[in-house]
Amino acid sequence: MGTSGKTPHVVILGGGFGGLAAARALSRAPVRLTLIDRKNHHLFQPLLYQVAAAALNPSDIATPIRRILRRQKNVTVILDKAIAIDVAQKRVCLADGTIDYDFLIVATGATHAYFGHPEWARAAPGLKTIEDALEIRRRLLSAYEAAERETDLERQRAWMTFAIVGAGPTGVELAGALAEISRQVLARDFRRIDPRAARIVLVEAGPRVLPTFAPDLSQRAADQLRRLGVEVRMGTAVTTIDEHGLALGDERIEAKTVLWAAGVAASPIAQSLGVPLDRAGRVRVEPTLAVPGAPDVYVIGDLAAVSQAAGQVPGVAQGAIQGGRHAAKNILNTLVGRPRVAFCYRDLGSLATIGRAAAVAQFSRVHLSGFIAWLAWLFIHLMLLIGFRNRFLVLTEWAWTYFTRDHGARLITGSERES
Amino acid sequence: MGTSGKTPHVVILGGGFGGLAAARALSRAPVRLTLIDRKNHHLFQPLLYQVAAAALNPSDIATPIRRILRRQKNVTVILDKAIAIDVAQKRVCLADGTIDYDFLIVATGATHAYFGHPEWARAAPGLKTIEDALEIRRRLLSAYEAAERETDLERQRAWMTFAIVGAGPTGVELAGALAEISRQVLARDFRRIDPRAARIVLVEAGPRVLPTFAPDLSQRAADQLRRLGVEVRMGTAVTTIDEHGLALGDERIEAKTVLWAAGVAASPIAQSLGVPLDRAGRVRVEPTLAVPGAPDVYVIGDLAAVSQAAGQVPGVAQGAIQGGRHAAKNILNTLVGRPRVAFCYRDLGSLATIGRAAAVAQFSRVHLSGFIAWLAWLFIHLMLLIGFRNRFLVLTEWAWTYFTRDHGARLITGSERES
Repeated sequence: MGTSGKTPHVVILGGGFGGLAAARALSRAPVRLTLIDRKNHHLFQPLLYQVAAAALNPSDIATPIRRILRRQKNVTVILDKAIAIDVAQKRVCLADGTIDYDFLIVATGATHAYFGHPEWARAAPGLKTIEDALEIRRRLLSAYEAAERETDLERQRAWMTFAIVGAGPTGVELAGALAEISRQVLARDFRRIDPRAARIVLVEAGPRVLPTFAPDLSQRAADQLRRLGVEVRMGTAVTTIDEHGLALGDERIEAKTVLWAAGVAASPIAQSLGVPLDRAGRVRVEPTLAVPGAPDVYVIGDLAAVSQAAGQVPGVAQGAIQGGRHAAKNILNTLVGRPRVAFCYRDLGSLATIGRAAAVAQFSRVHLSGFIAWLAWLFIHLMLLIGFRNRFLVLTEWAWTYFTRDHGARLITGSERES
Repeated sequence: MGTSGKTPHVVILGGGFGGLAAARALSRAPVRLTLIDRKNHHLFQPLLYQVAAAALNPSDIATPIRRILRRQKNVTVILDKAIAIDVAQKRVCLADGTIDYDFLIVATGATHAYFGHPEWARAAPGLKTIEDALEIRRRLLSAYEAAERETDLERQRAWMTFAIVGAGPTGVELAGALAEISRQVLARDFRRIDPRAARIVLVEAGPRVLPTFAPDLSQRAADQLRRLGVEVRMGTAVTTIDEHGLALGDERIEAKTVLWAAGVAASPIAQSLGVPLDRAGRVRVEPTLAVPGAPDVYVIGDLAAVSQAAGQVPGVAQGAIQGGRHAAKNILNTLVGRPRVAFCYRDLGSLATIGRAAAVAQFSRVHLSGFIAWLAWLFIHLMLLIGFRNRFLVLTEWAWTYFTRDHGARLITGSERES
């Protein structure tokens, strides 16, 4: 596939928040667009932990990218994996072929990082894809099944101990959801064990939970977690993880289920750009979001390291969406011969939820917590979900869960990943 | 685990329609019950093809067995796989341990049979479990993705050709759903291919579709399928299946997606009973549903070959449910010293649906087809689904699909099984 005729060809790698925002911003532009993703669906990652916790179905938070862009006639969607970028040739190498571009927007995001311990990946899965969420769900539910069968009390205890490493939003939300599922959803389903006795440990190397929030909200989030029965262990670095548990320095915790929410690394395709990367593997882009020395290549979202006066742009959906729109705008500017402009991130606020009817929210100087923050969280997430169908189904599931304290999607599917 | 005290221990293998019906029929009995299944969920198999066709979510038609039996205090649910039955020792060998019984109900059902061609399994997956349905869904949706990318017209045609082997209810329903998804759901999502041009071939070795229905309904079902654009090939036996297509005698059909709906074989555990099996591997049970020579072991559902004056009891949900209740009744009779009675199957009718708003239904002498049969199908299936939550969510999804002609669960998840 090559550039044909005179219509400029814009290739977008990644159908996440950033890639989709860029595609939509170019819907009326005189360009030919190709969006490439290795999955056929856009994923609403902020709710992925609810799929892991068996509260939502995969299709409630994932929509086929083709479906989203069905009416936008200037875009072609391709299911493929981008392997490398050849900036000199203006070509992307895919798993199945190559594609030439006039402009490129790289929005392939990030994956888990195990801080130099790739061997932890097997014992402590992370949460980035639908497959990850279903694997975590399978482990959680299987752990209770194993505990019910186990006659040795010590081993039973290990099956009923769940450790989550990392207390950013994903870790906090997973811990809250896990506490809820053990204390309420599963409470009456077993005969020999009492799921309410499950031990849930949230381990964080830093001094507080939700480090990107204001300190008072970190404190309130920690309080809300403790009220749900979560052991919050701050200032504690993990030194070992294996299939039987983890070590925090001298202390050993026997836990058959360890989940990883501690670190992300940029998608490895960044390395093929041949420009300096930061420690997490992200591309240090120009203020325009273009790659230094390659003005027609933009990097946005979790893959971009963007410094602003107020600090680094955070790796959240808003950062990716605003970046995608900005890259589109600079491409349009280039096409009409106008100068390209610098990106300016606008912080719209942060939210994290902690179990049923509790959350923390930070909108500039307004800090909320508890039920009111949870309502804000609920409303904003419903509005940001793509498609009326998803909004309606998720609201239905949430109302069901709220009133019945039951999680509907408690299926163990698939088989063990490793063997 | 052994029999303890004087309360008789009833072990049920399998949490399908038969096993659950037996467990429920014994809810007030003075027995200790253990239900063992290798999955944690009961599956409403009659709607499984809708999960394959991306119209429903797995959790819409599957419910955790523990959840269903939560209130029945005399039952313990164990997640394990039964390997063999030792009738002499009254013991079941599990993948993880053994369990002794006083009474045993074997309801482990059936799996696909490839009529002496196990090598076809890879190229033509069957539809029995949630994992099967998701694998079929992945293949269907991936085939359209591959067709969109393919530049060679002949290969593109092979990607857009779908063959279904076997025209029983599963094959007919799959063919109808496939026609619908290509003609309506996906129609506008692609740029280079027109999914409406997909070729869907339904191959059946016998002389008519839906052979267990009356001939007039077979005819109407075939007509409805043809109206949806399905090629119905009857009296045609498959001679080869490989990853590029299938052969019907001298005729070769290039089809990248072949689905198997032709045959079932009883679960292999039947072989360990040491009694005569029929050709499909089913246990030829006594009129009481007990195993010959083992009066405390009952076999029900798809695993049992039960001959009645009106013919063989069919392998459908009603056969399993009635069998489960009957086995429970005979166990109760034995406990109070009453004689055990013979099983008498009551045919409540048969239904099969063919795409949107079309179906055939046979209730004794009343034969229905078209919209009215579809309404009967819809109503009966909603009522038979377990749990208000599932009924409500399935009705919501169906209403959505009916009015928008969109299938919500069009996610490609997991990776290729073989590689």
